[in-house]
Amino acid sequence: MRAKNEFALRVIGYVRSEIRRREDSPRQGKEGAPDAWLELDDTYLPALDGIVAGDELILLTWFHLSDREVQQVHPRGDVNNPMMGVFGTRSPDRPNPIGLHPVRVLELSGNRMKVGPLEAVDGTPVVDIKPVI
Amino acid sequence: MRAKNEFALRVIGYVRSEIRRREDSPRQGKEGAPDAWLELDDTYLPALDGIVAGDELILLTWFHLSDREVQQVHPRGDVNNPMMGVFGTRSPDRPNPIGLHPVRVLELSGNRMKVGPLEAVDGTPVVDIKPVI
Repeated sequence: MRAKNEFALRVIGYVRSEIRRREDSPRQGKEGAPDAWLELDDTYLPALDGIVAGDELILLTWFHLSDREVQQVHPRGDVNNPMMGVFGTRSPDRPNPIGLHPVRVLELSGNRMKVGPLEAVDGTPVVDIKPVI
Repeated sequence: MRAKNEFALRVIGYVRSEIRRREDSPRQGKEGAPDAWLELDDTYLPALDGIVAGDELILLTWFHLSDREVQQVHPRGDVNNPMMGVFGTRSPDRPNPIGLHPVRVLELSGNRMKVGPLEAVDGTPVVDIKPVI
């Protein structure tokens, strides 16, 4: 049974990327990440209506490889940076490992959408898509 | 029992705001929203370490009053705007009603943080805090 202070986040699709391991992933999309495909569940096709190639979106993912118990890190994984709370960093290790990725839509084909640049590893769950405002 | 395609999002705190009803809430913070306090669970105090007044953050909330079955809306609730998929809009009604709020930190006191502007209603769960990059 789900605790009262939790909500169930539904997976709406998955990232299909050439990045296979977390250690091969750049820290941010703009740091050399490749383009990737999103494969969305057919259930959510109506929610994609109106999105076209060229749109700037914020993709929300769930960093499924993360450690949710980590509360402090060396920013950018550099031990020369003093430890700080994860809420002041973009560490994927955090209580709710939600990733925010600004991407551009490159191609759309049914329930598949090519976007880039995207630093998420292959198999990362997608949980929301929003326009940049 | 949780389905395999779901993840448990933990509530890390709550918004305390003068906005009491969804219909009294501006659509975006910059459209006249007030400042608000975040009351965070003491468990997560270490994760706040290093955040100071003046910081620009992205607050992630869970729009608990939303309808998760809605897939298409009239953008900005205006029936003159043609219906479109929620992933192309910032509608709070969406499969995973995560809110993204750019805010500035105004004051910090233990597990309480004053931020603004914030359009979320009183009692909205907070699920993550990230720096603007």
